[in-house]
Amino acid sequence: MNPAKPRKRMSVDERREQMLDAGAEVFATRGPDEISIDDLIAAAGVSRALFYHYFPGKREFFIEAIRRATARIQVATEPDPSLPPIERLRASIDGYFDVVSTNPLQYRAVFQSSISSDAELRAVMGEGLAMQEQRILDAVAPLGGSPEMQRVAVRGWLSFLVACCLDWLETESPPRDRLRDLCVDTLIGALASAARPE
Amino acid sequence: MNPAKPRKRMSVDERREQMLDAGAEVFATRGPDEISIDDLIAAAGVSRALFYHYFPGKREFFIEAIRRATARIQVATEPDPSLPPIERLRASIDGYFDVVSTNPLQYRAVFQSSISSDAELRAVMGEGLAMQEQRILDAVAPLGGSPEMQRVAVRGWLSFLVACCLDWLETESPPRDRLRDLCVDTLIGALASAARPE
Repeated sequence: MNPAKPRKRMSVDERREQMLDAGAEVFATRGPDEISIDDLIAAAGVSRALFYHYFPGKREFFIEAIRRATARIQVATEPDPSLPPIERLRASIDGYFDVVSTNPLQYRAVFQSSISSDAELRAVMGEGLAMQEQRILDAVAPLGGSPEMQRVAVRGWLSFLVACCLDWLETESPPRDRLRDLCVDTLIGALASAARPE
Repeated sequence: MNPAKPRKRMSVDERREQMLDAGAEVFATRGPDEISIDDLIAAAGVSRALFYHYFPGKREFFIEAIRRATARIQVATEPDPSLPPIERLRASIDGYFDVVSTNPLQYRAVFQSSISSDAELRAVMGEGLAMQEQRILDAVAPLGGSPEMQRVAVRGWLSFLVACCLDWLETESPPRDRLRDLCVDTLIGALASAARPE
C-alpha cells in the first residue's frame, strides 16, 4: 500500500463537493430537465457505481445542489444584530453578492434550475426563498407598513435580486458595487412604498 | 341545412381564441412540460383533428398562447406620449394590471410557462420581455444614468412585477391599487438609484 495515498484520498464530504461542483458546470447552461444522469456522471469523472453511492438519482443530485447553494446564502447573509436595520440589510446583500461572485456557476445552475418543471425541485427552491424572505421581513419589521405589503415587496424584490445577479453573471456588467447598491436602494424604495399610509 | 347554423358557428379566430382560453385553464396550474396534447384537446372539447388543424403540436399551442398574452400586454401598456415620463410609466403599469386582472388564468399560464425547460418557449417569452424592457427604457431615457444601469434596473424590475402579479393572483391581496403603486414606486426607486452619479 502506498503510504501517500491516505492523505490524497478525498474524504466523503470532499468527494461529494467535487461532484456537485462538476455537476454545476453541466447544469449552469442547461435546465435539469435537459440533463441526463449520464451527463452528470461524465462531468464528475467517476464510475457510475460511485456516483450512485453518493446520489440515488438525478433529482437527489439537484436537490443536494440547491440545498448547498441555499445554505451558503444563508451563512453569507446572516444578519448582524449590532447594525441598524438598513445597514444590516446592506451587509446581508453584500454577503449575497459574495456568494454569487465566488460561486458563479453554482449560482446560475441553481437559480436557473428554478425553471425545472419538477414540482419537488421547485419546492426545495421555494424553501430557500421563503427562508430569505422571512429573514428580510424580520430585519425590516420596524420600518412599518402592513405585514401583507411588506411581504409582497420583499417577495417581488427577491425576484429582482435573482434577475440582477443572473444578468450580471451573463453580461459581467455593471461593476459589482454599483449593482449591489442598485439592489439595496430598490429594496429600500419598495419597503418605503409598502410603509406608505393607505 | 339549418339556416341558424352559420350565425352560431365560430369564426376561425373565435375558435382559436376559445381553444387558447381552454388550454390556459389547464396550464395555469401545471407547467407545459407536465401537460400532454391530450390534456389540451380534452380541455378544448374539440376533436383531435380539429385541434391539429389549428395547432400543429403542443409547442405551437404554447407559443401561440404566449404571443397572444404578449400582444395583449403590448396593447395595454402602449405609452401615452402626451404624458410626462413618470405619469406615462404609471399609466402603462396600470394597463398591465388591467391585463392581469381581466385574464388571470392566461397570465398565470404564460408567466409560469417561463418555467418550461423548452428553449424555444423560453425564447418566445424572452422576446416579449425584451419588448417591454425596451419600451420602458425608451420612456425613462431622460431620467439619466448609464444605459447599462438603466437596463439592469428595468430588467430586474420586470421580474419584480411578474413576481408581484403572480403572488397577487394567488393570494388576492393586497388591493390592486396598493400593489400597482408598489410596482410604480419600486421602478422609480430603481431608476433613481441607476441615475445616481458613480
